Amino acid sequence: MNLYDELTKEYDKKHTHSGVNGDRLAKRLSVLAETGMTDEGGCLRISFSKEELEAKKLVMEWMEEEGLTVTMDGAGNVFGRLEGQEELPAVLSGSHVDSVPHGGHFDGPLGVLSALEVVSAWNENGYRPKRPFEVVIFSDEEGARFNGGLTGSQAFVGQIDSEEERKRVDFNGRSYEDVLAEVGLTPEGVASAKRNLDSVHAFIEVHIEQGKRLEKANLPTGVVTGIAGPTWMKVTYTGAAGHAGNTPMDDRQDALVAASDFIYRVKDLPGEVSDSGVATVGKLEVKPNGVNVIPGEVELTVDIRDIKKGWKETIVDSVKQQAEEAASKNEVTVELDEMMSVDPVEIPEQMQQKASEATQEVLEIESYLLPSGAGHDAMIVGRHVPVAMLFTQSKDGVSHNPKEWSSLNDCIQTVHVLKRFVEKVCDE
Amino acid sequence: MNLYDELTKEYDKKHTHSGVNGDRLAKRLSVLAETGMTDEGGCLRISFSKEELEAKKLVMEWMEEEGLTVTMDGAGNVFGRLEGQEELPAVLSGSHVDSVPHGGHFDGPLGVLSALEVVSAWNENGYRPKRPFEVVIFSDEEGARFNGGLTGSQAFVGQIDSEEERKRVDFNGRSYEDVLAEVGLTPEGVASAKRNLDSVHAFIEVHIEQGKRLEKANLPTGVVTGIAGPTWMKVTYTGAAGHAGNTPMDDRQDALVAASDFIYRVKDLPGEVSDSGVATVGKLEVKPNGVNVIPGEVELTVDIRDIKKGWKETIVDSVKQQAEEAASKNEVTVELDEMMSVDPVEIPEQMQQKASEATQEVLEIESYLLPSGAGHDAMIVGRHVPVAMLFTQSKDGVSHNPKEWSSLNDCIQTVHVLKRFVEKVCDE
Repeated sequence: MNLYDELTKEYDKKHTHSGVNGDRLAKRLSVLAETGMTDEGGCLRISFSKEELEAKKLVMEWMEEEGLTVTMDGAGNVFGRLEGQEELPAVLSGSHVDSVPHGGHFDGPLGVLSALEVVSAWNENGYRPKRPFEVVIFSDEEGARFNGGLTGSQAFVGQIDSEEERKRVDFNGRSYEDVLAEVGLTPEGVASAKRNLDSVHAFIEVHIEQGKRLEKANLPTGVVTGIAGPTWMKVTYTGAAGHAGNTPMDDRQDALVAASDFIYRVKDLPGEVSDSGVATVGKLEVKPNGVNVIPGEVELTVDIRDIKKGWKETIVDSVKQQAEEAASKNEVTVELDEMMSVDPVEIPEQMQQKASEATQEVLEIESYLLPSGAGHDAMIVGRHVPVAMLFTQSKDGVSHNPKEWSSLNDCIQTVHVLKRFVEKVCDE
Repeated sequence: MNLYDELTKEYDKKHTHSGVNGDRLAKRLSVLAETGMTDEGGCLRISFSKEELEAKKLVMEWMEEEGLTVTMDGAGNVFGRLEGQEELPAVLSGSHVDSVPHGGHFDGPLGVLSALEVVSAWNENGYRPKRPFEVVIFSDEEGARFNGGLTGSQAFVGQIDSEEERKRVDFNGRSYEDVLAEVGLTPEGVASAKRNLDSVHAFIEVHIEQGKRLEKANLPTGVVTGIAGPTWMKVTYTGAAGHAGNTPMDDRQDALVAASDFIYRVKDLPGEVSDSGVATVGKLEVKPNGVNVIPGEVELTVDIRDIKKGWKETIVDSVKQQAEEAASKNEVTVELDEMMSVDPVEIPEQMQQKASEATQEVLEIESYLLPSGAGHDAMIVGRHVPVAMLFTQSKDGVSHNPKEWSSLNDCIQTVHVLKRFVEKVCDE
């Protein structure tokens, strides 16, 4: 696949103005995509791999060409810094360049290269922001290597549990230390990468939506209202296995019937609380799982998200209540286990406001507000520093897949909004 | 485990009368159980194994001790024949001696040894039936070897597809021919084992219930009203996989939500048709089955049974209709595939009537009528010859498990009913 040709094929050059250049963004996206390009045209750029490092080095060269001061911290996070007119805490913008095993070319790179495109535009325009501005690449956002993820941003805010990290083993059975060594990093370096957060005024991340809201609204970009932290629950229904032929219908304790009752209740619960809440039963195992055996046990997971902590807690409570009610109604027992809970991160109102103003000013459209259901580096950074996110339309909502796509028209319009937005925040 | 001690521990000797002897039945059951006894006290007597053959030989010895004329046909089916007072078509009774891999000691052997106990009682009483009577052991009822089963009874009625049989490969990858050779059988022999069914007046099978109906009714034995042939359906719901965080609740095509709606409808369908019908979703697979991924596909099976063909067809039609309705209501597509359908076998009214009379006469209780949800050799034979079945109470309804249990009191009371029942049928 030639990503450059695909990107520029339907590009409308009217979007190249004010220093922002679609052709340059397309070139950078496509050159970056060559690193780790798979036979099927997707992206294999696992965290802490040579490919991730190579991608970082490419961006570091472009940063230097744009006159940025380039540094890499102990976690492999890359910063390209443009000094501001004043010595103030900096505005940061960026994302990541690692991918899931069979990923696409936009999830991560678009955020990094959009921030870089802002600098390129400023250089063309001779613009210098009041605050310093840094283009950022965070390491290992996806977590494909150690099944964790968000390592770079966690190191950046000083949230690395060094002991836990050292226990990690990758999919090939290699230790954390060995894997890091291959790309010139050490566990000590990761643990000591904490940035002095007083030096950071705000972090802004551009990312593909990974959903269909913008596509349905026919809009290039939208302003994120909050980042939904997930709560993962394991729900286990236990009934009694039995012969499907010899157990009358009125003498069954069918764990799957109870689980089905529950699953069908779950779908209505988020809507009772908010428009942004979601709840998903994604994984389910039946035991013993035989055609002619009444299910004795069903284990399933519920993924619950919302952008406000209180909203999410309300949904979690309803899910628990409905799990119990489905159990007692269907005469089985249920066990609930909270596997994980991450608090959502709210985007400060004034950040959303500035992003919306930027959208109206440069695109002359009403800004579209939408939640982020997935976690991002901004979720980690946002617990310590004001953050904001701009989403770019994703074709068919597909991500983590070679078919992941955002048109260059949509990408470059997002850059225009980002540029104006960053200028507003830099001038604060 | 000493099965004899366990069986006789709570035996009430008042049941030993009229030539029927609980101690003898316990001895035969426990000696037979030694063949293939597992460390955990269960039974490993796979079809066409040396253990199955050894068990047959034990019973053949006992048959000879009781003065029966013993033959084995080309399928390894064993017949112990007692000539009647007249040259008439014979009454047959028996079951099988093979087991599932970790089975118990009653499923099969109880039916064979109950029929033999009738002969022993007659010998003590000097009774000779009008019709000939044959004690039968059918080969390979369980199908643990080749995932088929009912081979002996199918050969007996001439229903063997020789070409298909020859393609069979066992769990160790050994051919049908090789496996048969080890127990002195050949594919040709199996194919040619068809009995002249004009020589058979009726077949009566005693079997453990493998359900809890008799236990709940606190009865030793019951009369089977019909043998439910199963219909197995595969139902595949296809929606759209998507990110659990980024797909709003009102924009989902969740295959598991649709499947849950369907499963919860299925439980009510048999009751709308009959008391004997059952429908079970026993097996279910979710794809991709990730905690944070909306299920894009769910494949599940439905096992539908009833003792009358028309009833079962009505349930199957409702299941199909509800599968479609759940699909359209939840905006996914569904595919239905009938994997297998075996017609139920009805037990002739007059056979049920005679069995009920026998129950009332010898036990002085109202007979308890119940369906057989599982298939048995009587299901195969019953398509050609009048059949009947008596069920013996199963502890906790458990079968195909080392915990399978029927008390000697219940077993021997069933033999009393069988004896009187056989006498009635033999005197027709």
